[in-house]
This record gives sequence, C-alpha cells and structure tokens, in this order.
Amino acid sequence: MANTKLIPRTPSAHEAPLLIKSLLAQSLRYNPQREIIYRDLFRMDYFELNRRIRRLGNVLSTLGIQPGDTVAVMDWDSHRYLECFFGVPMVGAILHTINVRLSPAQILYTINHAEDDIILVHEDFLAILETIHDQITTTRKFVVMSDKVYAEVPAELTPTSFGTLGEYEALLGAANDTYDFSDFDENTWATLFYTTGTTGNPKGVYFSHRQLFLHTMGLMTFFCGYEALPFSHRDVYMPITPLFHVHAWGFPLVATMLNNKQVYPGRYEPEMLLKLLIKEKVTLSHCVPTILAMLVNSPVAQQVDLSNWKVIIGGSALTRGLAKAALDLGINVSQGYGMSETAPIMSVVHLNDEQLTWDQEKQLNLRTKAGRMAPFVEMRLMDDAGNFLPNDGHAIGEIVARGSWMTQGYLKDPENSEKLWQGGWLHTGDVASIGPDYYVTISDRVKDVIKTGGEWVSSLDIENIFSQIEGVAEVAVVGLPDDRWGERPYALVVLKPEYAEIQTGENIRKILLEQCEQGTINKWYVPDRVVLVPEIPKTSVGKLDKKKIRSEMKDLLLGNQA
Amino acid sequence: MANTKLIPRTPSAHEAPLLIKSLLAQSLRYNPQREIIYRDLFRMDYFELNRRIRRLGNVLSTLGIQPGDTVAVMDWDSHRYLECFFGVPMVGAILHTINVRLSPAQILYTINHAEDDIILVHEDFLAILETIHDQITTTRKFVVMSDKVYAEVPAELTPTSFGTLGEYEALLGAANDTYDFSDFDENTWATLFYTTGTTGNPKGVYFSHRQLFLHTMGLMTFFCGYEALPFSHRDVYMPITPLFHVHAWGFPLVATMLNNKQVYPGRYEPEMLLKLLIKEKVTLSHCVPTILAMLVNSPVAQQVDLSNWKVIIGGSALTRGLAKAALDLGINVSQGYGMSETAPIMSVVHLNDEQLTWDQEKQLNLRTKAGRMAPFVEMRLMDDAGNFLPNDGHAIGEIVARGSWMTQGYLKDPENSEKLWQGGWLHTGDVASIGPDYYVTISDRVKDVIKTGGEWVSSLDIENIFSQIEGVAEVAVVGLPDDRWGERPYALVVLKPEYAEIQTGENIRKILLEQCEQGTINKWYVPDRVVLVPEIPKTSVGKLDKKKIRSEMKDLLLGNQA
Repeated sequence: MANTKLIPRTPSAHEAPLLIKSLLAQSLRYNPQREIIYRDLFRMDYFELNRRIRRLGNVLSTLGIQPGDTVAVMDWDSHRYLECFFGVPMVGAILHTINVRLSPAQILYTINHAEDDIILVHEDFLAILETIHDQITTTRKFVVMSDKVYAEVPAELTPTSFGTLGEYEALLGAANDTYDFSDFDENTWATLFYTTGTTGNPKGVYFSHRQLFLHTMGLMTFFCGYEALPFSHRDVYMPITPLFHVHAWGFPLVATMLNNKQVYPGRYEPEMLLKLLIKEKVTLSHCVPTILAMLVNSPVAQQVDLSNWKVIIGGSALTRGLAKAALDLGINVSQGYGMSETAPIMSVVHLNDEQLTWDQEKQLNLRTKAGRMAPFVEMRLMDDAGNFLPNDGHAIGEIVARGSWMTQGYLKDPENSEKLWQGGWLHTGDVASIGPDYYVTISDRVKDVIKTGGEWVSSLDIENIFSQIEGVAEVAVVGLPDDRWGERPYALVVLKPEYAEIQTGENIRKILLEQCEQGTINKWYVPDRVVLVPEIPKTSVGKLDKKKIRSEMKDLLLGNQA
Repeated sequence: MANTKLIPRTPSAHEAPLLIKSLLAQSLRYNPQREIIYRDLFRMDYFELNRRIRRLGNVLSTLGIQPGDTVAVMDWDSHRYLECFFGVPMVGAILHTINVRLSPAQILYTINHAEDDIILVHEDFLAILETIHDQITTTRKFVVMSDKVYAEVPAELTPTSFGTLGEYEALLGAANDTYDFSDFDENTWATLFYTTGTTGNPKGVYFSHRQLFLHTMGLMTFFCGYEALPFSHRDVYMPITPLFHVHAWGFPLVATMLNNKQVYPGRYEPEMLLKLLIKEKVTLSHCVPTILAMLVNSPVAQQVDLSNWKVIIGGSALTRGLAKAALDLGINVSQGYGMSETAPIMSVVHLNDEQLTWDQEKQLNLRTKAGRMAPFVEMRLMDDAGNFLPNDGHAIGEIVARGSWMTQGYLKDPENSEKLWQGGWLHTGDVASIGPDYYVTISDRVKDVIKTGGEWVSSLDIENIFSQIEGVAEVAVVGLPDDRWGERPYALVVLKPEYAEIQTGENIRKILLEQCEQGTINKWYVPDRVVLVPEIPKTSVGKLDKKKIRSEMKDLLLGNQA
C-alpha cells in the first residue's frame, strides 16, 4: 500500500540548532557561583564569565568582525582563552587557535592559510609577530592581551612596531555587557587549528558548532554516566594540555557545562603547576606523558599529597614505567586516545569497581591501554587490503573510525582530506587490537611499526620494556633498514641525571639480552644498538619525532659517527 | 575585507547521523551482561536484546514493512515493547504506540488517522480489535503478542475472527539474527502517539530520530552530570508509566544506553508491582500521582523496605500530602515536568547535597516543585499580551518553551500545530513562576486558574491544602461562574474508606475557615462548597478531568441536585 503520510525530512524552524551557546547557557543553571581562576592573577564566577563573553561579543562586533570571519588567538592557557572558546564562535566567527610552539615561519604559514582577520595576541608572543608581521597577508587587526593589567599597579604594555586596536581587558571593560547571540546553522564552523605531521606544512583541522556540541555531550555521557575516572560536577579541573591543541581535548567545554571550578595555569613550570594544583584543590587534569614525567620527577611532587588527582594521558603512549611512578605517588592515572582530527576523544580507560581493587601490576595493564571506546564513536580494524578485522583482542590492524564529531577534512587540502576519509572511514594511522569489551590497545603508528624477519614489532612495546630499566628517563625506538632482516630496531636513550656516569647503552642491551634468556621478551625485540643522548627530538606538541630520528640520527644510531 | 574561505553549511557524508541505533549500540559496550526482565515470565541480557532486535528487523522486512510505514503496537509494558522502541524506527518505520486505555472508537480513530500498516497486538486487546476491525481503513496486517508462550506448557492462543500473520515470539524465533541497520536522515520520524486533550479528537504527536537521540543525551547529562536524584548505570529501572505514553517519558532509551538492569511490570496491580520491585531490587521508577498513591496506600507498602526507591512524579501535580506519605515510607520522591509535545522532560527536581539535609517540611517545598530546567530546554514566562516576564520567582505567566526535542506539530493538523507554536515558542498552557535558580513552580493550567474577586487563584494550591486534611484521599477544585466574584472555587473530595462515616464536606470547609482565621490561608481560597463523591472523573492517562467536572458536575457542585 502506498504511504500517503507526509514525512518531513527537514528540521522545523522551531527546532533549536546545536550551538556552542547552548553549552554555555547551562553554566548559569546549576552551580554558577563556582569559580574560574587564572593562576594567582584573576578569579571570577560563572555569572561573570557569561557577562564577559557578552562583552566580548560587543568588542568583536565593534572591531568589525562578521560571521564567517576568522579570529586568531595567541595566548597562554588563561580565562581569556576560555572566553574566546565561546565568544568567538558565538558571534558566528571561526576561532583559530594558533600553536605558539611552532616556528615563526610555520606560525606565519598558518595565519595566512587560515586567512585570519584579527589576532588577539599575548604580549609574550609579540616578539614572534614582530618578525613575521610584514609577511602576514590577511590580518590588519591586532588586540594585545596582557597579564600586567591584573597587577595592583599595572606596568606599561610592551610597545609594538605595528598598530593595535587596544588591550583585551580594557576593551572588555569598555564594552556593554548585554549581547543577544543569535541562532544560526549548527554546521557553521566554530574552530580551526593546525596539526603538525612529520611531513609538509601544518594541516588545518576545523570543527562545526554541532560537532563540538556532540563531542561535549558524548564526553559528559561517557564520564558521568558509567564507571570510574568520572568527571563529576564536583571536580576541580585544570588543563595541562595547551588550549590551542584541539581545544585542550574539548575538556574546557565539558567543565563549563558541568559548572566545574576551573583553574587555568598559564605556562607550564612544574613547581608552579604543582603548587597551583594543591592550592586550588585540583582533582582532574589531562596532559601528555612528557608533562606528567616532568611533574612526577619534580622534587615538589614528593612533598605534596597528589592522591586526589586524576590525570588522563594522551598525545603519545603512557609507558608502564611512567604510569607506575604516578600511581606510586597516589595519582589516579589513565590513558585516553584520540587525534586532532577526531575532536579529539575516541576512547578513555574506564576502571570499574572491581578493576579498582586489582593489584598494581594488573591495573597497569589496563591503565596503559588506549581506553574503552567512547559513546557514539565507532572504531574498526582494517588490514592493508581494506578488509575489516574482528574485534577479538588478537587481530592487529589500522584503526579506522566514524562518528558525529570527526573533522570533515583539512582546510583547502582536498587531496589529504580524501586520503583521511578513504572508503568513508577516517584513517588514524595507528595500529591496534580491539577487544570484545571495546578496549583498544595501540601497538604503534603504521609508519613506526618495525618489520623485522617477517615479524611486526611494535616500537611502543620495546619502549615500554626500556621504561622499566633502572636509570632510563626517556627512550625512542625506531626501525632502520637491514640487509638481512628487512629492518632492525635501534634505541635512543636519555638517562636520569644520577645515572649518567654509571649506565651505558651496551649495559642496557645486556639487561635486555638477559631477559631474552629468561624468556620474558622475544630476541628480535632487542635493538641492535642503544645510543645514549642528552635529548630526543620531539615535535612541537611534545611527541617523539621518529621521522626526524630516522632521517637525521641514522648514522648516530648505526654507529657510523663513532 | 571579503572572506574568501569556503564555509560549508551542509554536513559531510562522513558525519554519522543522530539515530536511535546509536543509542542501542552503547548497550553492548559497558555492562552488556545486565538483565532486562518481564515480570516473572522472561529474562535476557543486552546481547540477547540486541540479537532479538536484529531478528525483529528481519521479521518486519519479511512482513513487507518499508521505510516510512507505520507499525502500531498494543501491548502491556513488556520487553517486547522495548524491542519495538528500537527495532521499528531502526528499519526506518514509524512506531505508533497505541493508547490502549482509550475507548474503542478513539483507538479506531488513531489507527486510521495514523494510517497504521501493521498492528502488533497483545492477546488481551484482541477483543477491542474485534469490535473495530471492520472499520479499520489502512491496516491489513496483524501480529499477535502473547505471554502464554513463556509458560512451560504454553496454552492455546486466543482465536481471532480476522487473519493474523503469526505470534511475535514465534516469528522472532524463526528469523535470522543478523541484520545490518542502515544509516538514514536523522530527521526521519521515529515515533507517533496520540495525546488526549479534553476537547476534540486525540492529536498525533511525532518525534524524529534526532529528537529522541538528543532527548536521551539531554536526560543522561541532566541525571548523571549534576546533583542528586541521579540516574546512574547502577540503578535498577522499572517504568510505571505506560510505554505507550510518550515512550514512558523517554526513560527506557536512557536506561538502555546506560546499561541499567531493567524491569518491565506488564499491568499495574499494586501488590504485584511492589513485590516485583522488592524482588528485583528496583531503585528508580517514574509514575503519575494516582499510581504512587495506589502503591503508598497498599497494605504491602507497610511490610517492605522502600528506602532504596527513587520515584520521579509527573503527569499531574504531586501534592504535599502524597509527597509526605511517600517520604514517610522512605521513598525518595520528586517531581518532574513535561508534556507529550516535549518528548516529554523539561524539568526535574534536583536536590543537591545541602538540600538533602533539610528537614522534611522544607524538602517538601522543593520536592513538589516542577523541577529545575533540564539542559538545552529553554522555558520562559509569557503574559496574555505575548510579553516575556522575568524569571524572578514572583512573576506568573504561561510557560513557553524551546529546545532541540520539541515536537514540530500535530499530525495532519496545521491549525493546532500553528496554535502550539504561536510566535515561535511552544505554548504549554501551564501557568507558573520561574526562579533565578531555574526552578519552575506550576500554579495551574491556563484553563483551570480560578479568577475570583480580581485575584488569580491556583486550583492546584487549594488542592494542596486539601491534601493535608485528615481523611482526604483525592480532591479536585474547579472554578464555577459567580455573579458577584466572577468565579468561585468548588471542591470534589474522595474520602479514605475509614473516614467515610466520620468526615463531611461541611466539616472540611470549617477546618479551612479556621485556617483562614489563623491567617495561614487566604479567605477566598475556601471553596463555596465541598462535595463528597466516591470517584473523581479522570482522563485516559489518569489526570483530573476538570473540563468534565465543570460541565457535567456543575449542578452537583452548586448544590442544585440536593
């Protein structure tokens, strides 16, 4: 029988679109008296946050910012940045979070590529802008951000060789605090930032209001709805991942909607971070392993109580050694997984009641996994030929993903966008297994897997073994070509200072070879050479730069430079 | 400067649509071993639920159901109904949840109006279908649902005068358990049901996949993210609101996504409900006040421990008297607010840690409010002239609402749809105040407010006073025309059986007049007459039918029938 009913396939005009402003609106409802803090410089409640964001709306309008314009920010992790997370997209503009750790040339590239219309820049980064200002093609407007204005007797602002439109705090203070943020299409772009691979120029990744709304809802559901590592509205939240980096993993949006007390630390100095953490009673953070190592190894860490602190680790692999060191300090550490292109969260370790009673060794196995799949994220394993592999905990393949908050491609880069979404699945470039319990275990990057004697060896697995050897502070393992075996692993090691005189690379190899004899590791895992270095090359976001290691340190690793 | 960037305003093909199947997918991830139970007849885990829904997909396809078709269900509250909540919309069809409490003539009206293509009908409702079968214009297909099939020795099914396509459980058993539910537009209709006002024919209300997805996410955020009355994944959930009634307020979708243990009670017999509740350790339910009163007044309630039971009350006002009776039994009772047109949840009472330490009287004030606004629901107050009133806790106006999960209108009824959405806001017909803390306090229905001597008097307020007088089991207060005052209140009272001989209407009036003299209530609140009746007229969903009371019982109330 023919169906005579009208089935509307377009949403009604009455239906509220999924916009970032709806997330902010919640922050006035439940615990608006909670505080948002910037170091020891600035404190406000959620009423004031909302008021300042309305003022920011007026400032942006006055400065001529139109829907579709791009507003760039170069700032430390501050309350101002949080205000821009909301205020900029809420006027319909796109927030470009500039990676201030890039080289001036790369920063210039991203500013011009993003066609920034205005840059809000912290005084500390004016020196960078001075060197590239003449080559910026689209931006004629600059607003200065300064921490000096929070001092009782503010110092003079740093002068610039180019004109600016004023200082952020002064502009806000002069602006009206009523602003009616209008509705618009939920697929409007909200944010844009650049991801730095190991090849070519930085790639622009962008997210819409709808995607950030759904990412926030997905995370709230995941963290509040199920088992442990819960993100409750009672947590005190401090990001230790730069806000320019995938919007600090989306957590500031979650924290704002949950009405958490929030602490923004500015720069990352271990002693200051730990003192701020204790003073403000921070209970939840997230960071990359390098930062956690820095905090764990700080002398201050031994003097304070970190047993109320939960940390989610991402960005690169959490080694067993580091996880153990953190657990020994009482830190509730777990790993998550995601990438710039996925907004970024795809999975986080979730310990249930029973797992929390396990002994440390067994917990470490779980805490160093990549986590359990987040709601509404679909991850599958794919082999080289594009076939799906089973989620049986054994099969190893590249993780491909789908979901409602994945980036749609790279800005003005159809070729790489198409590569990213080959066959309708987002290709992560990560090799993993997935258990029937939806737990993901990453083996390696597709590019970093070491193919030796017909075996696929995970460079991360070998690094994990190294992380548990006495004296090893940092390690990077890469595969280099070998006539007989195809590839062989080589290791770069940074020793802890107190071991500098008493440990050698050859000694470490011997320890590994002994473990082979005891049958605890496979013989082909032992690198051909272990080279001690004062520092390991890293990317601008603190990940081991294995491409650089393979290309620039090849001779050192092979012993050709002895 | 002209903006040269391409800003895509359409979502990419890579972006996963918001579909009901994504909610179900979560049920396999975290605690799939939890059980879903139908009385003492049937138990399964979430793996089996998913398997049965895939089988249902195959059954529907085999029976010729196409995307856009309408599949109607007439069943008690069972696991089968839950399967249909997912399976029917997941094949792209529309689930029509037939209100089995309507009169046969009204049921016939809704079947024909909805243009049902197939009806899945429990044996107990075959008698209704027999009486209207000849007048059904669109449905030629029937599937029988029976509880007999779960018996060890199943009895014969009830014969029908018309042909059926088989029994639900038998069809499921014969179907293949693999089915690949495809993606489609998230604005596709998922559900349809009929709301019965006090005038005219029932009105068809429909919701899309996107709306139900967002309602579920909104509820999860609300219940898991903030303060007390939390809906945690550890709760054992039993609905005591019919599944045909606004999908049991959307809770079964939340419970499925949260992997709660779920208990479906079938029919509502107080003793059976309480025994099932204790046996399966139910911790969370929702129901209308009538059902709560029935349970609270059951002799079994005194014999069991109800102190782990949370109940959310909606549908009509929770009186102080009933709330107190429930609290006295240890029941954690709170009120929520919503309507069929809003999917339905708009607000729920949320007691925070401090409020939970308040004394009972103070808690009752809060617990009997309509609740705190849910995330992403915007409620405003509007006066007769269409002006917004402030949310200051004092101003009284009609609640108008907006959000992402409000119905877009009534099926094939543009006139009422337009009235519902006058001025771009959904008109609830409820009169309320809203506090600066986003707490909503309902005064009355727009139609039920009593205008007496220039004052607006809430019939609900008067009913609340009555509910605290000894011997009063139920009460309804309505306004009737009065030459001098415009309108005057009149009350219908049902006494508790043990008070039948010792309490009179005039006595109750005297108690109220004494309270006036003590200054605790206003004089114009005291009804001109209090009439004792054995029963108060109610609508099919158990609400006081004030329209019927005003029209049909006017003479009785005025004393003209003495």
